[in-house]
This record gives sequence, C-alpha cells and structure tokens, in this order.
Amino acid sequence: MIFIESKDNVLYKETKKLKERRNRSKTNKYVIEGFRLIDEGFKAKLNIDYLILTEEGNEKIERFLGNNIKEDTKIYCISDNLFKDLTSTENPQGIIAVVSMKKNNFNSYGNFYLLCDKLQDPGNLGTIIRTAHAAGVNGIILTKGTVDIYNEKTIRATMGSLFYIPIYYDEDLSLIKQLKQDGFKLVVTSLESSEDFFKEELKGKVILTVGNEGNGVSDEVLSLADSRVKIPMPGGAESLNVAIATSIIIYEKVRQNSF
Amino acid sequence: MIFIESKDNVLYKETKKLKERRNRSKTNKYVIEGFRLIDEGFKAKLNIDYLILTEEGNEKIERFLGNNIKEDTKIYCISDNLFKDLTSTENPQGIIAVVSMKKNNFNSYGNFYLLCDKLQDPGNLGTIIRTAHAAGVNGIILTKGTVDIYNEKTIRATMGSLFYIPIYYDEDLSLIKQLKQDGFKLVVTSLESSEDFFKEELKGKVILTVGNEGNGVSDEVLSLADSRVKIPMPGGAESLNVAIATSIIIYEKVRQNSF
Repeated sequence: MIFIESKDNVLYKETKKLKERRNRSKTNKYVIEGFRLIDEGFKAKLNIDYLILTEEGNEKIERFLGNNIKEDTKIYCISDNLFKDLTSTENPQGIIAVVSMKKNNFNSYGNFYLLCDKLQDPGNLGTIIRTAHAAGVNGIILTKGTVDIYNEKTIRATMGSLFYIPIYYDEDLSLIKQLKQDGFKLVVTSLESSEDFFKEELKGKVILTVGNEGNGVSDEVLSLADSRVKIPMPGGAESLNVAIATSIIIYEKVRQNSF
Repeated sequence: MIFIESKDNVLYKETKKLKERRNRSKTNKYVIEGFRLIDEGFKAKLNIDYLILTEEGNEKIERFLGNNIKEDTKIYCISDNLFKDLTSTENPQGIIAVVSMKKNNFNSYGNFYLLCDKLQDPGNLGTIIRTAHAAGVNGIILTKGTVDIYNEKTIRATMGSLFYIPIYYDEDLSLIKQLKQDGFKLVVTSLESSEDFFKEELKGKVILTVGNEGNGVSDEVLSLADSRVKIPMPGGAESLNVAIATSIIIYEKVRQNSF
C-alpha cells in the first residue's frame, strides 16, 4: 500500500481529472465508487487499474472485497480531506476504483436493441441501462449528444448493470443503418404519433427508440424510423418520465418474445 | 401585496415549519414550488391559501400566472435571504404556494387500483404517481410507513399528477379488505415468486401491489394476496428500480384492458 500525502501527487491529480467527461474520453478511464459496485466490477472482470482508500475504507476492505484483492492489486491510501475531492457522494464509503474502459466492437446478435437518442439526464440513462440488462436487451446504442455512460450518477443508477450490457456509440447513425439492412425494424416512440404502441408487432428483430427528455427523438432518427408509436395515456397526464417510458416498451418486447 | 420583513413573522414561521411531515399532518397544509407546478395547482382547483414571492418571482408572476391571480389571492413578498429557508431547490424560481389538503373520501369506482406498501424513496413515489395518473389508475393506496406524498421531492417528481389522482392512506388495511370483498383481486409482485407476471389475467377488478425498495411487500400485505407474481428478468440483473417495476405492471393492465 502506498500513501498519497499531497494534492500535487500526479496519480491524485489524474484521478481527480476523471470527474470530467473530456478527461475520461482522453484517457479511456473512469471511476467507480463504493464497495458494492467495486465488488461487482471485480466479478465482471473489469480492468481495475488501482484502488484509492481512506482509513475507513481500509478498515473495511478485507471484509467487503477480501476475495478480490490479489497481491498485484494496486492500492493507494489517502486522507479524508484529499479523498473528498475525488468523490461526489454525500456519504462516501471511503473507496474508489479507477477502471480502464473496454472497447466494445459491435457484434450483432439476438433480436433486441435499444436506441437512446440524445438523452440528457444521467440518472435516467443509468436506470434505463439497469432495466435493459434485466430485460435481456442485446445492446444499447447511443447517439451523439447523449449523456456520458461514465458519469458518476449514471454509473450509480445502473447498479452494476453497466458492466454487463454492451453499449455502443453511433456518432453518424451508421450502426442503425447497418442493423436496418440486417432486417431490424426501427420502432420509435413519439408523443406526436397516434399509433398505439401495444398494437406493434415486436417478436422479430427490433430496435426500440427513445428520445431526449424535452424534445423527443431527433429528426435524423425519425427519418429512419420504420414505425412511429405512442404509449397510450388513458388517464390524461401529458407525458411519462423517459426511463419509465423505456421500461414499458422494453418489457412489451419481453412479453411478446415469451409468447 | 404584503411584505414580510422578519424571521419572526408568524406566517413565515408557520410556512417554514411545513418542511416537516409532522407539521404538514398537523395543519393539513403543504407547499408547492415553481411557476409550472403552481399554475397546474390553480388549474386543478387546489385550495391555495397564499403565495410567497421574492422580487424575482414578483417580476414574473404576471407572465406565468396572470390568469390565475384574482383580487382576493393572498400574496406575500419576501427577501431572497428569507426565501432560502422556505425552499429546498438549488435554483428556486422565487415562488411557493401554501395549499390546504383536500380530504379524499374513499369512493370505489373503476377496476384499477395501485397499492404502494412502505415505499421509502420520495422520488420513486412521485414518479409512480405520475405514471399511475397517465395510465388511468383509479386510485393509489398507501400503507403506513410509506413516504409522505407531500414531501417536496415527491411533489416535484409527480409533475402535477398529484393534484389529479385520488390517493388514500390505509393504516390498518381495511380499505384493501373492503376492495377484496367488492371483488378486487390483490396481485402482489415479489422477487421470491416464480409465477410470470405476464401470464396473470388482469382484465377485471385488480389491485396491483409493489413494496419497499429493500424489503419488498410486507408480510401483512402478502398474507392478503390473491396472487404472487414476478416480473421476468431474462437478462440476469438482480432487481428493477421500484418505479420501473410499477410502470411495467401498471401498463400491462392498460394493455389487457384495451384488448
């Protein structure tokens, strides 16, 4: 174990920079926090570069992560005061891990993709990733302008599902076009549509699509849609939260797949 | 318009106390915040006792609430500094309203109730209220130990749906027993069940039930269940967020009702 005693320590400074998306993208590294999530990270065989602990974290590590810690696991110790600048949780557990991203090469399989188009809220995206994992979605595709999956709030809301489901960035929609050529139907939810979502045939190869919290699905994606549908709202509220809407459409495909 | 200049002002002190649940229960009053929500409150004909504005709020009120403000609407003005203690939002718009609760006498109608058993998270409950309103649920029933519907985070997450859907407290489960006698089937979701939720017949009179985030549905409620079901998770995540799970089961009844 190595002690970090100063704000000028290079590793400390580099870790702190990972709070910003552009630095995560530049270095291909991100931070996960807390014993439960880091334990899940070890189980999912993430590339964990090093751990940083406070005294409190160090006292608990044997109990919570004992099985995962190997002789070559790099562990740094740090004061509570320095640790504070590395975390954003209100009651930190005193442990973070720095992880190297794995590159997901796109590999089409299964019949079930989810497209998130310019989603803005990190908590919504995290909840959607968790739900998609539970539902057995084969992959999540994100368009340019979508919030970062390595945002700390997103990671927390995924409850570890982030480590298991393939997620792809589709900057120019070429992936969507390729899937469409492979026989996938692009189904887009839109408040402007009058077609009842529940009448949609979803048994085959399908990409389900949800859009931005305020503006819905972008015109570029809409123009590729094979089908535009609306979740019925018989009770009269104006809209649904986007993570809720996503879970409803995802699970309708789960239901149709099972009958 | 009346100016409140001191922390010792009685109305100011009483308003501030409404941040705590026990004071809301004692006075049957609660606070709503922001122009959009207060506009919705006027539309829904809430009993709005008075408004409190900052200078900024006062500048915008004509534009955002002009149609709602009558000669007898009580409006108080206050400094930003005093206002801060009345709100919990990070970027307040400078307006709150104090509202008198309406008593919902239970009135069974329709075929669709939702029971929330000891739900703890205010944001989850708010999102569930919004979804239930959209789905046309006839009423929401809360057991003892469920987070307060007038919690500021709950209210915010309902996006105004709180003002439209009847919500009942069922301290001793007598309401549930009465509904069961009236022919309602109590359907409970439970991670321990092996019955696939999507195989459940939901066309008739149904009460759908979700439980606490950590512990699920309580034994008292489970013992009244006519059916215990589980939302399938073919992808392998351990659980779903409770607001997500609720939306999936609510919308399966919407779907079955429409066919």
